[in-house]
Amino acid sequence: MDIEKELRENRTRIDSIIESRFPKNIDLEYLKWLAGNSPYLYDPEVIQKTVFDPMWDLLSRGGKRWRPWLFLILANNLGVDLNRFKDLVTIVELLHNGSLIADDIEDGADMRRGDKAIHLKYGLDVAVNLSSAMYFMPLRILMEMDVDKDIYRRLVEAYIEDMIRIHLGQATDIGWHRGLRDPEDIKVEHYLQMCANKTGVLPRLAARFAAILARLSPEDEVKIGKFAESIGIAFQIQDDIINVMGAEKLGKSFGEDITEGKITLMVIYTLSRANEEDKRRLKEILGMHTRDRMLIEEAISILKKYGSIEYAKEFARNIIRRSWEDVEGILPNNEYKEKLRSLANFMVEREF
Amino acid sequence: MDIEKELRENRTRIDSIIESRFPKNIDLEYLKWLAGNSPYLYDPEVIQKTVFDPMWDLLSRGGKRWRPWLFLILANNLGVDLNRFKDLVTIVELLHNGSLIADDIEDGADMRRGDKAIHLKYGLDVAVNLSSAMYFMPLRILMEMDVDKDIYRRLVEAYIEDMIRIHLGQATDIGWHRGLRDPEDIKVEHYLQMCANKTGVLPRLAARFAAILARLSPEDEVKIGKFAESIGIAFQIQDDIINVMGAEKLGKSFGEDITEGKITLMVIYTLSRANEEDKRRLKEILGMHTRDRMLIEEAISILKKYGSIEYAKEFARNIIRRSWEDVEGILPNNEYKEKLRSLANFMVEREF
Repeated sequence: MDIEKELRENRTRIDSIIESRFPKNIDLEYLKWLAGNSPYLYDPEVIQKTVFDPMWDLLSRGGKRWRPWLFLILANNLGVDLNRFKDLVTIVELLHNGSLIADDIEDGADMRRGDKAIHLKYGLDVAVNLSSAMYFMPLRILMEMDVDKDIYRRLVEAYIEDMIRIHLGQATDIGWHRGLRDPEDIKVEHYLQMCANKTGVLPRLAARFAAILARLSPEDEVKIGKFAESIGIAFQIQDDIINVMGAEKLGKSFGEDITEGKITLMVIYTLSRANEEDKRRLKEILGMHTRDRMLIEEAISILKKYGSIEYAKEFARNIIRRSWEDVEGILPNNEYKEKLRSLANFMVEREF
Repeated sequence: MDIEKELRENRTRIDSIIESRFPKNIDLEYLKWLAGNSPYLYDPEVIQKTVFDPMWDLLSRGGKRWRPWLFLILANNLGVDLNRFKDLVTIVELLHNGSLIADDIEDGADMRRGDKAIHLKYGLDVAVNLSSAMYFMPLRILMEMDVDKDIYRRLVEAYIEDMIRIHLGQATDIGWHRGLRDPEDIKVEHYLQMCANKTGVLPRLAARFAAILARLSPEDEVKIGKFAESIGIAFQIQDDIINVMGAEKLGKSFGEDITEGKITLMVIYTLSRANEEDKRRLKEILGMHTRDRMLIEEAISILKKYGSIEYAKEFARNIIRRSWEDVEGILPNNEYKEKLRSLANFMVEREF
């Protein structure tokens, strides 16, 4: 199955769903829908410029849209009526894009999807406000959803819990970057938690939405959520591998993670295996936040020396395999089940 | 009634409620409660430093806590069982403090409550993440609340709608600061909407929580929400008055709003009345973002020349009076009703 082609084709569909609720151009009537009626007067022209223009700028730049796609495929697999519930893709995708804006501010990133980061293009004030605005605005869709009260509460609680997690994951990552913990003290279990919270949480939410709407038991919802979380973790591990392998295979820029001092699974594994001198040196280079190619290559060569790339790759494959085993019996056998499996495999095998 | 004394005394009570759910020092067990169980491992030491330390630093610096107090008094007035529901004050107060962190980043403020702004003291990355973390973490309290499903849905929807509003209000204010609209085109109705969204929304949420728990009709909930929103608007108008009057009466710093180029009700009124020369000059000084005392005094003298301070004061009083008339018949007659009225009056009469 050509999952890349499938994702490309679905992107248009997903964006048209998003646009049907969050149009590129808004007016007063729209704001009354979004924010509720009020005796005073909204200023749609200004909100257009400080919310909707930068939001659609970011959305239009690209992105794979695999999180909303995951929701749609899983919902189809489980027999959820997408005529009623397809708009939930908007929540998943806007949360993701809102979190990218915050990430870029927090990491001091210059670029995002081939253009200037939102806070550099529109200003820090606009970006900080937009980021969290995108955490709430799509919830208007949930507010007007005609579902059982039990289902409503489960949907809301999945959202709240996962939004708490994403912030704790980010707080952990920020603390590690800031050197609040000796990298040698960070265990694989810590890394997986951080990664589950940062990268696993939005696919997890997408999957939980589908499981809840299909009225699966909370136990099965947890398993399906874990499967999606694992896809997110594997996606992140593979991202980190590509970042240190990139140069060899694709000739594109690489090694930013070394510059950032990022604690990846490869770093953790290497620090647990390396001799004292290699450990010291790896930590030293990670602490330098350097852009020097020689130093970056040196750090990567230490990672390679201890087989950490193969370890990480195998680790990602195992996570996917185990969580697939957990859900295989829950998911009905149909064409969508195969697509889910393909997506999961794609995440660990992709090279871009 | 001595409302200031009452607020001071209640502050300790409110903070101990907050601390009972969001302690100053956290551990692994706590994080499992806050973020839910997980097969991996949270890093409580790092989350302590990047979330709980800066959060409690800000909370400990002060604040009147009038929003949670409003919830408690209104709940008492309406006969809500506070043994079951008092923890909701935590949501109201953490949302408020989270929004202050975002405000300070967006305004480029140096100081907050007598100490360095959170983004300057702990870093922009920590502050951006903490600000929106505080929008979600207290919702854990709602998640475990034992209430009817109808009540639950109404509470959630009040929260979502008001969080959407606060971001649109902020987006409007940011756009105005950035000069995306000619100040002369900003009407009183626009100003009231911005102000309702920025400053009115959290007291509104506090009040709606109380009204919903008291099982008032949605119509009465709207009226009580509007009353609380009006208190917030009056609070803001009075804040703006104090900012230009401050020097005369208290000898404290004043005029920052002129430096900021803030569009206050006084500015809007003056621009609608002044002769061409005064209009031009006022807009010019507001656009300078100057700290020059002579220029600030000049702008203030134009505001005074057209009676805009008296106008704003009277406007705030009228808003309070009219919204009080709307709720007077809904609120049972008891000691708490008098407190509510005192709080409302305090907001327009206070001089600090």
